Amino acid sequence: MTQTTEPPNFIEARKQKLLEQQRQVQELRVRMGKIKHKIAVISGKGGVGKSTVTVNLAVAFAKKGYATGILDADIHGPSVPRLLGLTGRQLKVGPPGAFPVTGPLGIKVVSIDFFLPETIPTIWRGPLKMGAIRQFLQEIVWGDLDILFIDLPPGTGDEPLTIAQFLPDMDGVVIVTMPSELSSGIVKKAITFALRLNMFIIGVVENMSGFVCPHCGQKTEIFQSGGGRSWGSISRQHTHRPENWRRS
Amino acid sequence: MTQTTEPPNFIEARKQKLLEQQRQVQELRVRMGKIKHKIAVISGKGGVGKSTVTVNLAVAFAKKGYATGILDADIHGPSVPRLLGLTGRQLKVGPPGAFPVTGPLGIKVVSIDFFLPETIPTIWRGPLKMGAIRQFLQEIVWGDLDILFIDLPPGTGDEPLTIAQFLPDMDGVVIVTMPSELSSGIVKKAITFALRLNMFIIGVVENMSGFVCPHCGQKTEIFQSGGGRSWGSISRQHTHRPENWRRS
Repeated sequence: MTQTTEPPNFIEARKQKLLEQQRQVQELRVRMGKIKHKIAVISGKGGVGKSTVTVNLAVAFAKKGYATGILDADIHGPSVPRLLGLTGRQLKVGPPGAFPVTGPLGIKVVSIDFFLPETIPTIWRGPLKMGAIRQFLQEIVWGDLDILFIDLPPGTGDEPLTIAQFLPDMDGVVIVTMPSELSSGIVKKAITFALRLNMFIIGVVENMSGFVCPHCGQKTEIFQSGGGRSWGSISRQHTHRPENWRRS
Repeated sequence: MTQTTEPPNFIEARKQKLLEQQRQVQELRVRMGKIKHKIAVISGKGGVGKSTVTVNLAVAFAKKGYATGILDADIHGPSVPRLLGLTGRQLKVGPPGAFPVTGPLGIKVVSIDFFLPETIPTIWRGPLKMGAIRQFLQEIVWGDLDILFIDLPPGTGDEPLTIAQFLPDMDGVVIVTMPSELSSGIVKKAITFALRLNMFIIGVVENMSGFVCPHCGQKTEIFQSGGGRSWGSISRQHTHRPENWRRS
């Protein structure tokens, strides 16, 4: 006879857990169903200006009158609050859940920065990060949005996998890169990643393409070391405009 | 009576697993015991030149005649092979395990890049990354080294936690940052992270402190937005030279 460490009512407990998970998925679908378009911004490496591109995209859409949100899914290094001047703000909590912080132009923002002091590092392994992102999608009262931008951390680990899993209806991804990455295979990795997860590639943004000296006006391509060649042909066939890409 | 999905001999199986884990830890200790000094290079955010600093440190030590190694623990975005001109190389495998690739000045290098084609993304969650790093430490025949530099990915997630767990005898960490991070709390996060895990802070490197225009020679502080102020006092009390910091 074998011993077991499970409680006697473990079948009942598992059933409850499964039901709870189903309820969570249901709640997540309802919340996310109110957001017409969801676009993730990814990069192969950090420091290419991914968060800056995310914020600029959101501001551009908000200026055109779209109801816009940003989910800062970078758990270890959230940058969005600082870029929008929202550092130190906190979410308001009501009966239906937590409400996003409203930034400039009415952009709704959620970031781990609103939960933890800015100098405390999130020393978290994958499952904890996955849980945080799930809560951001499920328990935040985003309300009716035209478009939600998701700022993902660099790399191809837990955070983007979690987003891909929970948001199968995502419109697509914008890949941000810089010139020195083009020759290094890093952009190809990001493109391969998106294709493998059936994420639609909306476009590739080449950031930091040149620095114009404020003293003499001459342009220097600081990070240039190869140039955009090979990735174009890979990504082009997958980058066309979604058909429902209109304000409805 | 409860049902159980465990096999009848699960106690024996668990015992075997535990013994296997003990054997692995033992093997790891033996392998790592041959390396006199271990230094991790960390950063709060990506794109600050962490890998470049790691490689420069390794080259500087190798030039002084120290037997030097680099463990590229950045699983999603390995940069070390490219910086040392070792892209496309593969590890040689023999009976005692896999041998690191020997780079310039005899620097021994191990990177995920030597296992996978450069354009294939590592779509891995935390536990898989943890397993890879454990294998890098345990199953690689590093041999006798004076110093091993560990290039960690940005952030405070699975990879640095794994290194801290497996290498409790590490000499310390070098934190790489850039001027724009100093005012943002990101450096403080990295420092807090290191202190919490009882990692000794050897120093903070401020990279990209200014760009000298090749056309007119004027310096522009592109990423400057605050300046190094507050973190100095936090880190200074923890940054003194380890006593055994001599070539033995």
